[in-house]
Amino acid sequence: MADIKFEIEKEIGFIAESAKGWNKELNLISWNGKDAKYDLRDWAPGHEKMGKGVTLSKEELKKLRDILNGMEL
Amino acid sequence: MADIKFEIEKEIGFIAESAKGWNKELNLISWNGKDAKYDLRDWAPGHEKMGKGVTLSKEELKKLRDILNGMEL
Repeated sequence: MADIKFEIEKEIGFIAESAKGWNKELNLISWNGKDAKYDLRDWAPGHEKMGKGVTLSKEELKKLRDILNGMEL
Repeated sequence: MADIKFEIEKEIGFIAESAKGWNKELNLISWNGKDAKYDLRDWAPGHEKMGKGVTLSKEELKKLRDILNGMEL
């Protein structure tokens, strides 16, 4: 994973810490110099390493928000 | 990926379709027979193939919902 260039433009929200100390976070990240996208994934402390995750556009994030608001959680 | 056993217990929400026809979805999925978790990832049509994604517990999904509701999207 070391050769992927990324820049965390904005740390938006901490979601949870896992048993092994990794943090699930929502961030705004530019990958390889491209336009930043919202990004939901697990990170090692200090963002040293990254886990698998998913990127979302603003529209997708809005859709996800609306889905979650429609759920009985 | 073929040897991962999964069962989509509930299809919760369609988020977006990508240019290559894959769907970004929120589902409730049991992986390898374990308790189902919420799951956000891209899927090929008919769930034939899966992309990278992230799993979330109910508490994590609530936290994500609250973060999104606090954002100006």
